[in-house]
Amino acid sequence: MPANSTTAEIVAAMRSAQRIAVVAHVRPDGDAVGSVLGLALSLRALGKDVIAMLEDGVPANLAFLPGTDTVIQPGTEPLGIDLAIALDTATHERVGEKTKALLDAAPLLIDIDHHPANPGYGALNLIVPTEPATGQIIYDLLSGHGLPIDDAVRQNLFIAISTDTGSFQYSSTNARTHRIVAEMMDAGLDTARLAQLIYQSYPVRRLELMRDMLNHMEFRAEGRIVSWQLKQAVMDAAGMQPGDTEGLIDTLRMIDSVVACVIFEDIPGGKVRVSSRSKDSRLDVSAVCAQFGGGGHRMASGARMRGPIEAAADKFLQALEHEVRRID
Amino acid sequence: MPANSTTAEIVAAMRSAQRIAVVAHVRPDGDAVGSVLGLALSLRALGKDVIAMLEDGVPANLAFLPGTDTVIQPGTEPLGIDLAIALDTATHERVGEKTKALLDAAPLLIDIDHHPANPGYGALNLIVPTEPATGQIIYDLLSGHGLPIDDAVRQNLFIAISTDTGSFQYSSTNARTHRIVAEMMDAGLDTARLAQLIYQSYPVRRLELMRDMLNHMEFRAEGRIVSWQLKQAVMDAAGMQPGDTEGLIDTLRMIDSVVACVIFEDIPGGKVRVSSRSKDSRLDVSAVCAQFGGGGHRMASGARMRGPIEAAADKFLQALEHEVRRID
Repeated sequence: MPANSTTAEIVAAMRSAQRIAVVAHVRPDGDAVGSVLGLALSLRALGKDVIAMLEDGVPANLAFLPGTDTVIQPGTEPLGIDLAIALDTATHERVGEKTKALLDAAPLLIDIDHHPANPGYGALNLIVPTEPATGQIIYDLLSGHGLPIDDAVRQNLFIAISTDTGSFQYSSTNARTHRIVAEMMDAGLDTARLAQLIYQSYPVRRLELMRDMLNHMEFRAEGRIVSWQLKQAVMDAAGMQPGDTEGLIDTLRMIDSVVACVIFEDIPGGKVRVSSRSKDSRLDVSAVCAQFGGGGHRMASGARMRGPIEAAADKFLQALEHEVRRID
Repeated sequence: MPANSTTAEIVAAMRSAQRIAVVAHVRPDGDAVGSVLGLALSLRALGKDVIAMLEDGVPANLAFLPGTDTVIQPGTEPLGIDLAIALDTATHERVGEKTKALLDAAPLLIDIDHHPANPGYGALNLIVPTEPATGQIIYDLLSGHGLPIDDAVRQNLFIAISTDTGSFQYSSTNARTHRIVAEMMDAGLDTARLAQLIYQSYPVRRLELMRDMLNHMEFRAEGRIVSWQLKQAVMDAAGMQPGDTEGLIDTLRMIDSVVACVIFEDIPGGKVRVSSRSKDSRLDVSAVCAQFGGGGHRMASGARMRGPIEAAADKFLQALEHEVRRID
């Protein structure tokens, strides 16, 4: 990995630019959307012309965030930007095909992320794997260099941090995470309202998915692995929307015997998305995902496999069980 | 409510005493157990002879907390104490019948709590309804007066605070809450381990209860009220233990249309325990619970009613629906 740039260099590049694209990974989660909008809104307040772009747009469960109405999906028209910033995206390709094609025309690319596997594909890089969320890196960047932070920026960065730490429960959470939230509350941020919007505003159809999960979850390795196959027919019956499954895996994590949980999900093109979590620091699920071309964090990782879902699940779970038995 | 004592008066009374009983309410939750042990362990480190007593003992889901092996249930033998401290207990009776009988012999009673309905039944009182947890009051009392705080004290007070704020999501959470956690992490507390033990260590039978809830939840008032009746037969089939249902209601809170959720639960003596939550600050569920002899907080409240469960649910839900329709 190339050495990180200084935050001063990165802020100087932002200040020098006039038209800036801020992007994140496909299938954006709370940290991706919150980081993109937190930074975009701050740079706009600084007088910059900022394009907030997400290959897959904003999922319905995050639409409440201020600024989401300004997020665009990539077209074919050149952006005419003099700076591109990729956030929370471990590999350049993960910004999405169309987005990447547009970014390639930018004279300068900045890569800011907390995924340890990020190789530093920018001309300027700020990869901080010890931070629990890219949103936390952005907050410290903005506050450390006196860039504008208003309530809308805070809302976005709070959601980025809160979702990527599992509401401050994951081991990546640090003392600074809590101090940032305290600072945000001092400044008047209503965190309870945001927590309610993100954690307590699920459509009933999400509970239907959860019900299917509880009815069809499967255990192996003496209960240490639990998995669920979310099939197309169930999604169709529930009328599933993007974002509906976010956090469902945490319900499987809750089981005391479990050290690893996996959700397999039918996705277009006959493929299967794999989301896996480890509850034991000795078990590295990103290593298992890497066997199938995926990656992520040690305790939270993903992959895409060829379907059908039953065969993909079988292959993945065999590899996972092998790893689980190694830590016995 | 009588005026609060100063924290200096309360700490002076603790320092003067030699044999102290620390108690909390029946059916203790995380804040009750964590506050009792947080304070008891600190006073023991100060050289006091401390009886940590809970009428119903420690529920299985909290048994991991340091010091729980020293918690006793009340017998009939006098305690020979010169100070009694009731924590997190809104009325004196809520410590439990046997416990109260033993405390009545104490020459001095201190009442420390965050329930707004607490009348201040101690000789010394510290009722701070703006704090999200009694554990937060205890932490500030200990740290503000230089009383001993070690890792075991921190573990107990962290669990008190984390559980009573719904992992920092409830509106009662304040900036100080986050700063306390940051201080605890600076001192080396492993909050992720504790979060895993409390939120991700549920027995499979808990998921069976959740499955029953998702299969049998009922909506009324156009989806603004959701409720579930946990019947004895389901508890028996799942082999339910105390603590298994804690937090289950949060899954019902998640539904976007919902402003109030209620769980009715068969309890011994043909009675029904009612647990209710509000998601709208204009809706005061404690007022509804008060109609049935219960109480608590505006957004989280409970009551006990006469069974059978279907009739109790019907009566309570009618009263609740009346309140919900008033905020239209």
